[in-house]
Amino acid sequence: MIYLDNAATTQVKKDAIDAMNEVMIKDYGNPSSIHSMGLDAEKKVKTSRSIIQKAINVSQVDGKIIFTSGGTESNNLAIRGVAIRKNELNHFITTSIEHTSVMECFKYLESKGHEVTYLNVDKNGLVSSSELRDAIRENTRLISIMHVNNEVGAIQPIEELVQITKKINPNCLFHSDGVQAFCKIDTDIKKLGVDLYSMSSHKIHGPKGTGALFIKKGVNLSPVLFGSGQEYGYRAGTENVVGIVGFGVATNIVYSDLSNNKKRLKSIKTQFWNKLSSHIDDIYINGDLETGASHIINISFCDMRAEVLVHEFADNGLMASTGSACSSKKKIYSRILGAMNIEESKKMGAIRFSFNPYMSDKDIDNATDIIIDAYKKLVPIMKG
Amino acid sequence: MIYLDNAATTQVKKDAIDAMNEVMIKDYGNPSSIHSMGLDAEKKVKTSRSIIQKAINVSQVDGKIIFTSGGTESNNLAIRGVAIRKNELNHFITTSIEHTSVMECFKYLESKGHEVTYLNVDKNGLVSSSELRDAIRENTRLISIMHVNNEVGAIQPIEELVQITKKINPNCLFHSDGVQAFCKIDTDIKKLGVDLYSMSSHKIHGPKGTGALFIKKGVNLSPVLFGSGQEYGYRAGTENVVGIVGFGVATNIVYSDLSNNKKRLKSIKTQFWNKLSSHIDDIYINGDLETGASHIINISFCDMRAEVLVHEFADNGLMASTGSACSSKKKIYSRILGAMNIEESKKMGAIRFSFNPYMSDKDIDNATDIIIDAYKKLVPIMKG
Repeated sequence: MIYLDNAATTQVKKDAIDAMNEVMIKDYGNPSSIHSMGLDAEKKVKTSRSIIQKAINVSQVDGKIIFTSGGTESNNLAIRGVAIRKNELNHFITTSIEHTSVMECFKYLESKGHEVTYLNVDKNGLVSSSELRDAIRENTRLISIMHVNNEVGAIQPIEELVQITKKINPNCLFHSDGVQAFCKIDTDIKKLGVDLYSMSSHKIHGPKGTGALFIKKGVNLSPVLFGSGQEYGYRAGTENVVGIVGFGVATNIVYSDLSNNKKRLKSIKTQFWNKLSSHIDDIYINGDLETGASHIINISFCDMRAEVLVHEFADNGLMASTGSACSSKKKIYSRILGAMNIEESKKMGAIRFSFNPYMSDKDIDNATDIIIDAYKKLVPIMKG
Repeated sequence: MIYLDNAATTQVKKDAIDAMNEVMIKDYGNPSSIHSMGLDAEKKVKTSRSIIQKAINVSQVDGKIIFTSGGTESNNLAIRGVAIRKNELNHFITTSIEHTSVMECFKYLESKGHEVTYLNVDKNGLVSSSELRDAIRENTRLISIMHVNNEVGAIQPIEELVQITKKINPNCLFHSDGVQAFCKIDTDIKKLGVDLYSMSSHKIHGPKGTGALFIKKGVNLSPVLFGSGQEYGYRAGTENVVGIVGFGVATNIVYSDLSNNKKRLKSIKTQFWNKLSSHIDDIYINGDLETGASHIINISFCDMRAEVLVHEFADNGLMASTGSACSSKKKIYSRILGAMNIEESKKMGAIRFSFNPYMSDKDIDNATDIIIDAYKKLVPIMKG
């Protein structure tokens, strides 16, 4: 089996699993308990917090890492946390290619009377800094622009966008959904300058059910889950120590080798595309091969039906995806590709392949063989 | 080490860990993916759903099981889900001894202009059915009364309270926080008649970070986390398959043996209390020994400072708790015992001991020895 759906979720690292097992059997205390088992559990959470801090180059002084149940909750906390208890109506800015968990938060804010501007993107999935500049108002409360797009891998120039924002409106907060960027590309928060940054464990070989949100010092958020005031009062509920420990260990492994991983992913992506494009004529990359994140490639097999291809791949042991996993069951063409103005013939045949740095050249070679065979088998049927 | 803090959290069952490991290494697909690994993950979630259904005696026809990140989120979804998108102001009823995650949701609803009635409890922690009867109004939208109290183990007569509610106002919804009841006492939802029921995995030897909410057919809730519409649209975010599988396996183990477990816990509680009360004069049970849940006993060591005792116990290898874990760090006397009108001298020395059915008589004997020794050591210092 060759798994090329690493942007949907990943296999958990063995060391992370071992650490999680130890927590479940031995150190299973509740961090809120005042006895030693509680304190031990609290220490484990603290260690993971330090690891995440290091991976985004921040310290206690810069802000807080809040553990959540995943990227979706991190995005909800960042966006709705800004607005949930305010009684005044504000203006917000986001893009047309955000993850559904970001989009739905803004739809909710709109339903409450707030105003939201959705920035367009170009054919490579990038927002225009001048369009952002023009959109910022005096009452713009928060801007949310994802770091790496989950379907096409487009990397937004967050650092530049934050600078533009803060120059025009220093009070406007900047959030970035970093779920597909964290531990894949450089995520130096101090350099990026964002106030809020979302991360997820299961995209980087940690367990599902755990994520984090960086909250810059001085930024005030209301919780979206109410209760006993864990996580500095930002997120109630017994800490998922098992998941948090797994997330920490996985981050440590992947981040320690980030520079090599990036090179390896770049090489995998190039090998993958070169072989495919030398055997199949009518295919195109959605996004830019060079500037996009290396773990994602979105390829259109023109006039072919993507879901039929994906099933044919799966029958031969290759896992890939039409668009994001989260929306793949809805059987509509990708909202992201629509925003990028991709033609109908390409949208219907668009497939996302996503890699991890631990795959071998042989894996990639076998994967491309499966794709080429499936294409050749189906092209006479689908294209007549 | 003897762990008597099982109401705070529990050790995860070995079979649950094994099943979780298999998910993390082998079946790590995203349930939203359309390929076979996604389908396999979805099947695993479905299996856990069936197990939870069985443990509360419902089927698909009766309503849905929604997986959440834990009891806190289940309570938030149940209570705020009823009110979050409604524009009219309503009346709500709860009790003065609910878990903080329930209390804080109602505080939030009050801040939004809704009205909330807090029912009193008697010295055993029980609400009065006539007080409930008097409190129900035409515009009462939801009543939330916990099944088993987390600090003293009081079991509310939910079945009777639901009947009273539905007779007076058939449109009024009834939620019960069943976190300390599920897999500890009988939780036949059809018999109880509730519309919404919260459960948690880590209280029943499953992993932290997973919970569930039963939503009766026909009950309309808005989500509290927005996104890609997982869990029938009630709860966005990639399903925590790892946690959900662990929750399912743990439920299966504990529920299959519920009848024996209940007998064993009753015997443990009796042994524990008989030994302690025969060696220490000035101690009292908060709640009722006979009618309370058998896994929790709350004992007041009169005029002693509970946190000092708890630390002395811990130094000798016994883990117990002052009040609930969630509020134990706040160093104030228990809100629950306050609502039960427990005297000051008893409140300051109140300690919760909570059991699991897998402990031996020897464990309990050793635990009581530690407690008696600690008491005798500290009583001259604390009581002069």
